[in-house]
Amino acid sequence: MADSSTSESHYFSSNPPPPTLSQHTAQANAFVTHHHAHSRRVVLLTSGGTTVPLENQTVRFIDNFSAGTRGATSAEYFLSQGYAVIFLHRQFSLLPFSRHYSHSTNCFLDFLSEWGRIGEGEEGEDGGAATPDVVVKAKYRREMLSVLRKYRKAKEQKLLLLLPFTTVTSYLFTLRAIACEMRCLGNEALFYLAAAVSDFFVPPDRMAEHKIQSGDVPESTSGPSPGGGGGGKKLVIDLDPVPKFLKRLVEQWAPEAMIVSFKLETDPALLLKKCNQSLDRYAHHLVIGNILATRKYEVLFVEEGSAQWVRLPTSDGNSGGNEEVEIESLIVPEVIKRHEKMLARKAAIH
Amino acid sequence: MADSSTSESHYFSSNPPPPTLSQHTAQANAFVTHHHAHSRRVVLLTSGGTTVPLENQTVRFIDNFSAGTRGATSAEYFLSQGYAVIFLHRQFSLLPFSRHYSHSTNCFLDFLSEWGRIGEGEEGEDGGAATPDVVVKAKYRREMLSVLRKYRKAKEQKLLLLLPFTTVTSYLFTLRAIACEMRCLGNEALFYLAAAVSDFFVPPDRMAEHKIQSGDVPESTSGPSPGGGGGGKKLVIDLDPVPKFLKRLVEQWAPEAMIVSFKLETDPALLLKKCNQSLDRYAHHLVIGNILATRKYEVLFVEEGSAQWVRLPTSDGNSGGNEEVEIESLIVPEVIKRHEKMLARKAAIH
Repeated sequence: MADSSTSESHYFSSNPPPPTLSQHTAQANAFVTHHHAHSRRVVLLTSGGTTVPLENQTVRFIDNFSAGTRGATSAEYFLSQGYAVIFLHRQFSLLPFSRHYSHSTNCFLDFLSEWGRIGEGEEGEDGGAATPDVVVKAKYRREMLSVLRKYRKAKEQKLLLLLPFTTVTSYLFTLRAIACEMRCLGNEALFYLAAAVSDFFVPPDRMAEHKIQSGDVPESTSGPSPGGGGGGKKLVIDLDPVPKFLKRLVEQWAPEAMIVSFKLETDPALLLKKCNQSLDRYAHHLVIGNILATRKYEVLFVEEGSAQWVRLPTSDGNSGGNEEVEIESLIVPEVIKRHEKMLARKAAIH
Repeated sequence: MADSSTSESHYFSSNPPPPTLSQHTAQANAFVTHHHAHSRRVVLLTSGGTTVPLENQTVRFIDNFSAGTRGATSAEYFLSQGYAVIFLHRQFSLLPFSRHYSHSTNCFLDFLSEWGRIGEGEEGEDGGAATPDVVVKAKYRREMLSVLRKYRKAKEQKLLLLLPFTTVTSYLFTLRAIACEMRCLGNEALFYLAAAVSDFFVPPDRMAEHKIQSGDVPESTSGPSPGGGGGGKKLVIDLDPVPKFLKRLVEQWAPEAMIVSFKLETDPALLLKKCNQSLDRYAHHLVIGNILATRKYEVLFVEEGSAQWVRLPTSDGNSGGNEEVEIESLIVPEVIKRHEKMLARKAAIH
């Protein structure tokens, strides 16, 4: 314990805070204060992968696979259930609402068409024919309108705060700062940690200043350094483990909140074991396990003493593969049910 | 030479081709044949960063910094100059035309508004009031219309072929295949290699099958393996150099084409030297050097016997920082001028 706490303090004192930290903290403070005053529950939702830069002036980095689908989709369902959402996300990963029209096979320009005013006698600013309207094509209109209205409502009612990060270090600094801002919410606060956070990082004192040169002679044996003799040079990257911040979050940053973490594995044989390990180690409320290949169809809810699959039904009643329904529409209500149970339990005690 | 050729053959025989290869090759073949028949010049434009997976079922990977801005922007200028463009790009990186409305601070939903038909007496399919139109707001209309028309023209005239890649291996297999399809174009073909390609990779025989576990005991000393004694486990990643494919492209895959490569550095003191080294080593036509911090304002054209800065002018006549003009609007015409000079020279010889 003393050891882990020391390594966490050391992490924050030896890595530089992101330049956006004070701005993001102030935004989170205003957001939390506003919704606390309206007795609204707040979820901090993390999404997308964190990067581990290999150079100070970063050309190369290690990344974690994540488009941010789980996070962006879940955010919409939390909003629809009345939660205010702080969306701490990897810059340029999928966002709630706009996700319906990005990263798709169709370019969003394919949804638009011109709808002429030319010839209607109206004159444009330049004295010529007016610029035609650009309208969403009829066949996409109904769905776009539904997304647009939900987006507009979230925006107008200030229910969604978008805060971006890129590196694992900026993610951890920001998570800590927001958790502290959310402490006033007590157990009305929910943490839904869907981001894919790196387990390893390059300490600043071992980071190359400039782009690592493929033809360089190695200068040191630690940190990223091209090495090897003979023809082609090899690159050896030597990474340290990121301290386990979930423990610190549960015990100190957000001791009253409900905390949900995710575990992504590729080997189905390991999933339950890894989820239970995580729950044992951090003593939080819920681990949602998922397998890379099937994560859009099924997830495993692991709590103290129980493990339960949540699966998409198919038209034939079996699980697996239903394009129409998003699994987050099942996950989020299940999480909220548990949050409400926890709130009711605490209310009964007091 | 024999050594490098062997390592390149070995790369292609020991790494699996991407599953999309035959489909992308067929698309490139149809595209090239069509434009060759219309005597149109074709540029193969590469864009975005390549990934290096650390696991077979990839959770973690090494990436190169690149949103794809250089490539996506350049593609629009090549199209406006009458070239047909094969856009070989990292999946989900910026695309020509849609780049104006993605990765931006504004969500594209902010550009749209409802424009009611309700109350106009028109009935919707469901018998109720008709769904309102979704229109682009007046203040964004003119610019959106201009982008939409260029996009539509490129699409209708089949001037733009979008082919995605993710890993460095799929990039290299696809580059080789398309280069061979383009050989019929002779020196009408242009290669504009703006992608940020990894110099290092993990050979398949050293790749972990499943997600590397942060708590695992190391099983081998090569490839990615968590190791180190004591408390936290370290991760050591041991990468091999990617063979230098530019040489093979210049000498064998596209011996008649004009070939332009890019060199991105962070240390200004190294830029000219690295560009000249590249030109000496591969004997192609042009290296465009750029520095990470200033790449949007200035680039260095390095050719045999000459080096020339291309810089954005500012309103006061000095270089650096002009938000209105994109530097690709200067780069692309400079490249085309050189391509035309080369075509004229070859025509004079024959």
